[in-house]
Amino acid sequence: MKKLINDANAVLEESLDGFAAAHTDILLLGAGRKFVRRRTLKQGKVALISGGGSGHEPLHAGYVGLGMLDAACPGQVFTSPTPDQMIEAAEAVDTGAGVLFIVKNYEGDLMNFTMAAEMAGREVASVVTNDDVAVESSTYTTGRRGVAGTLIVEKMVGAAAETGMPIAALKSLGDEVNRRTRSMGVALLPCTVPAAGRPNFTLADNEMEMGVGIHGEPGRRRVPLASADAIAEELVGAILKDLAPKQGSEVLLLVNGFGATPMIELYLMVNSAKRILDGAAITTTRFLTGSYVTALDMAGASVTVSVLDAQAKSLWDAPVHTAALRWGA
Amino acid sequence: MKKLINDANAVLEESLDGFAAAHTDILLLGAGRKFVRRRTLKQGKVALISGGGSGHEPLHAGYVGLGMLDAACPGQVFTSPTPDQMIEAAEAVDTGAGVLFIVKNYEGDLMNFTMAAEMAGREVASVVTNDDVAVESSTYTTGRRGVAGTLIVEKMVGAAAETGMPIAALKSLGDEVNRRTRSMGVALLPCTVPAAGRPNFTLADNEMEMGVGIHGEPGRRRVPLASADAIAEELVGAILKDLAPKQGSEVLLLVNGFGATPMIELYLMVNSAKRILDGAAITTTRFLTGSYVTALDMAGASVTVSVLDAQAKSLWDAPVHTAALRWGA
Repeated sequence: MKKLINDANAVLEESLDGFAAAHTDILLLGAGRKFVRRRTLKQGKVALISGGGSGHEPLHAGYVGLGMLDAACPGQVFTSPTPDQMIEAAEAVDTGAGVLFIVKNYEGDLMNFTMAAEMAGREVASVVTNDDVAVESSTYTTGRRGVAGTLIVEKMVGAAAETGMPIAALKSLGDEVNRRTRSMGVALLPCTVPAAGRPNFTLADNEMEMGVGIHGEPGRRRVPLASADAIAEELVGAILKDLAPKQGSEVLLLVNGFGATPMIELYLMVNSAKRILDGAAITTTRFLTGSYVTALDMAGASVTVSVLDAQAKSLWDAPVHTAALRWGA
Repeated sequence: MKKLINDANAVLEESLDGFAAAHTDILLLGAGRKFVRRRTLKQGKVALISGGGSGHEPLHAGYVGLGMLDAACPGQVFTSPTPDQMIEAAEAVDTGAGVLFIVKNYEGDLMNFTMAAEMAGREVASVVTNDDVAVESSTYTTGRRGVAGTLIVEKMVGAAAETGMPIAALKSLGDEVNRRTRSMGVALLPCTVPAAGRPNFTLADNEMEMGVGIHGEPGRRRVPLASADAIAEELVGAILKDLAPKQGSEVLLLVNGFGATPMIELYLMVNSAKRILDGAAITTTRFLTGSYVTALDMAGASVTVSVLDAQAKSLWDAPVHTAALRWGA
């Protein structure tokens, strides 16, 4: 294992300390590093809280700030945060308008967020994301996995929350954005959980995992390495088949790196994916390209397509000021 | 070689096409893909042009836009752009106030930018960056290499250019920012140039290259893998020894990933580096963390420290709207 770390069991803590030090203008680290919260809260705004296992940085703490989350609860690497983290985060950021949890569909996360909602002693609603079309159920999920599309839900619901939208409407909006959003990914090289010290799966020199999850869990099948165009064809094809957007639809295209894939390859994938969308008479009017929802040091990428209407565009374009996503502010 | 590509010889072209498609609001691709330029020029502003071999994305094209560059000329991977690229870029973006080249100190780049300056038929000045303290001369350089500190020069000079600063003052400013800025990096895993198809150097399982260049060229020495704290100690130590900032100085800390190193490790390095700066009575008041000046899919990171005064802080904080760096706009 070759990583820039000190103690394999202190990676999360030391990384969070660096993160908090680098972004003191935006956020604060909660006591015991149980959560990351916005430095300045907006009274009367519904509080948005997400979280999940670490190793997907910048998800979720990188999306805490104006126009997105109020708090994020980081579990240990690839391990759900515990209910007390979400309960304490809710206590810290709820200004009276209630709390909306945004939860990726994994059994551990669902269980712990549900327990937190029951025990929080305040109004809590939840949006569960499940945008990954690769497999119907998986190692850690019943039903589809929540992956990179989650950040689109966080951005759009976050923007709506800033306008004062009440909790029930925010939950409906989040569910609707999730329904309009689909993802699928491919791994070229596995990832290594620091505490384990070795890759969590193996791939031969000429193999890739098509439909991989963001913890390296299996996808649809293991196949010989293919061209970017062929990969994009399969990823975008699977997404469009499931999403069935109307011809002439406008979409947001997110090409997301898993952690060890450089921008030169990600933009090449943008080129391949856009060409396929163009060919299907789908117009890509918003782009996001980069390593936004990662799997530690896994090489590979995912493609996410989210169907846009006027409201979605306006929510996407609204100001955001977080560590990982920033514009208009 | 496992990469998201189609033809190893068309990587740059296809990646540039994806890049241009994703950022049509900011920029345009010049004819023959010879340069990337700002969509909207500001009349009477000195035009800033940079460029260099590709494979360092988002450098330089990702820094084209308001508050940074007017154009960037991408050479083939790890190969200098040719003089005609800079000449045509200058023709496209010079609005009459002259052109400032920002050039990383590599022999090929220097030769081609110098030739372009002589042949451009317009007023041209140049800033040459050489922030890498690792080695005095190297595979492709006489004198020190220009590395991640280049983006700090581009940001600060770019902000000054927006205020209407004339070309001679911009050149002085660029030289001064370069003098206040030092970097050093470490590689944990090598990188692979697509057209070569295999890693451009080898490292044993327990080795790292201390002081590596951004093309994988040798640094100070090859040593056993060490902890993040020990690595930070050596990188920051070498930088501070050379930079010799006054106690109580304010600095910008850039922890830069080389392409295959995830954010969880980079923020951990921020924590280590900041602790060392704190111990030296140097106050870190600006942070930038991410993969900003890469070496394809090399794993590892560099640390850059830039001494700040009131002007430098104001230039750093000024609005910027590029593909890779954006705030206040």
